[in-house]
Amino acid sequence: MNAEVKMLAPVVTDAGAQYVLRIGDACLVLSHRLSEWCGHAPMLEEDLALGNIALDLLGQARALLTRAGQLQAASEAQAPGHRQAADEDQLAYLREERHFLNPVLMELPRGDFAFTQLRNLMAACWLLSLWDRLRDSSDAEVAAIAAKAVKEVQYHQQHAADWVVRLGDGTEESTRRMQAALTQLWPYVGELFASDAVDAAAVASGLGPAWSELRDDWDAAMAAVLADAGLPRPQDTPHVYAGRQGVHSEHMGHMLATMQHLQRTYPGGVW
Amino acid sequence: MNAEVKMLAPVVTDAGAQYVLRIGDACLVLSHRLSEWCGHAPMLEEDLALGNIALDLLGQARALLTRAGQLQAASEAQAPGHRQAADEDQLAYLREERHFLNPVLMELPRGDFAFTQLRNLMAACWLLSLWDRLRDSSDAEVAAIAAKAVKEVQYHQQHAADWVVRLGDGTEESTRRMQAALTQLWPYVGELFASDAVDAAAVASGLGPAWSELRDDWDAAMAAVLADAGLPRPQDTPHVYAGRQGVHSEHMGHMLATMQHLQRTYPGGVW
Repeated sequence: MNAEVKMLAPVVTDAGAQYVLRIGDACLVLSHRLSEWCGHAPMLEEDLALGNIALDLLGQARALLTRAGQLQAASEAQAPGHRQAADEDQLAYLREERHFLNPVLMELPRGDFAFTQLRNLMAACWLLSLWDRLRDSSDAEVAAIAAKAVKEVQYHQQHAADWVVRLGDGTEESTRRMQAALTQLWPYVGELFASDAVDAAAVASGLGPAWSELRDDWDAAMAAVLADAGLPRPQDTPHVYAGRQGVHSEHMGHMLATMQHLQRTYPGGVW
Repeated sequence: MNAEVKMLAPVVTDAGAQYVLRIGDACLVLSHRLSEWCGHAPMLEEDLALGNIALDLLGQARALLTRAGQLQAASEAQAPGHRQAADEDQLAYLREERHFLNPVLMELPRGDFAFTQLRNLMAACWLLSLWDRLRDSSDAEVAAIAAKAVKEVQYHQQHAADWVVRLGDGTEESTRRMQAALTQLWPYVGELFASDAVDAAAVASGLGPAWSELRDDWDAAMAAVLADAGLPRPQDTPHVYAGRQGVHSEHMGHMLATMQHLQRTYPGGVW
């Protein structure tokens, strides 16, 4: 891969590629936020656990970004002057903010430990339901990625659930913090279950489910954990976020500045 | 300025250029930290004041970085294959962390409002004493920059002193926060007054004073404000920081990632 190709900022326009990229970006961005805990977790074991979860998510992101680049290239193959498929590095490090398609939930600053574990739980319950369905994807690559990822995310879900119960049903301070995290995070949930034309195309092609199909699984899984934790489920708020259409919070640009710094400082650099 | 020249990461090796760059980087980095308050200050008037101080510091930084680039180029002029002088943009946006020469004090995260005003006071007392002497620099450019800057920094010093007195001698919370800021910031003071070979060369050439000469002025100015604020002067700690030799805190790289993102995303971009 030469430096010139690396410098092109890839834009993904194909609906199937966008569908895959939304999930890949969700994994990538959450992975980056978890990596920010490295060396800062409240205990060594948890430092390792969060690091390992971040690495699992990064592996899933790499596979999905690679596949999204291939799907985009395939969609362009008939067009004159089409270019080589964008690879995982280009998609992660050379896209601009508006071309990232993750739900806003994933990009919120890491917050405190309660916030982190609750978000992990929300994300894991969502990904678990999604990966489960993606095992039946009409795209064999996506199905293979899902078959591996579903096992990893089961562990993530269990790990986060343990912490949410432990902190939600813990000391006065831990309960207060978990409650605050719940209040802060809940408005971002709606975006995980809103469907649009990209979803519709994925359903039509058998690539994957509409995100709206995931809501019942998620509600049931979250309800079980919140009940154990003694935390009341917040009221749903209207869905207003559109990260998966590229409209991000103020935090996203700052996160990308950090995440992309190395590749942008050494264009085309590889391991 | 073409994009190819822009992509070179400039390294300043001439002692005179380093002397100027240390001060320029101090202004640049503090300016960036103050710019982070934009839209976040506790009142509109202060939002504007901090923004204006940041812009003054940025103007000083631009002048000094430009001059440092010229001094470096002049020192290379006899060498074979010497290159065009690095300009202010290259020095600000293309250097790596280890080549920034600001004292660590300037790069610490912005902290709360008490922290910000106390650091501004510390920096302004130091710069005031420095600019005052630099008006007599043997380098006419530096002398001209100093003649303008000294007037600006007098205002910065007064503004910060007013806030330090108001908060230090204010409510229980404001006193507590100012006291905490004093404890946190004081260990970084030593670096502002340590002299080394770069200083010695500047003294020898008449370029500017050794930083150690600034200590008495600074102590007197700070003592007056701390007395008005009812804050005890902390005990001095051993000088351990070496930002002006390029050894920075963990915060510096993250700050540069944000500060340099635009130029690194659009190499060679200009207004």
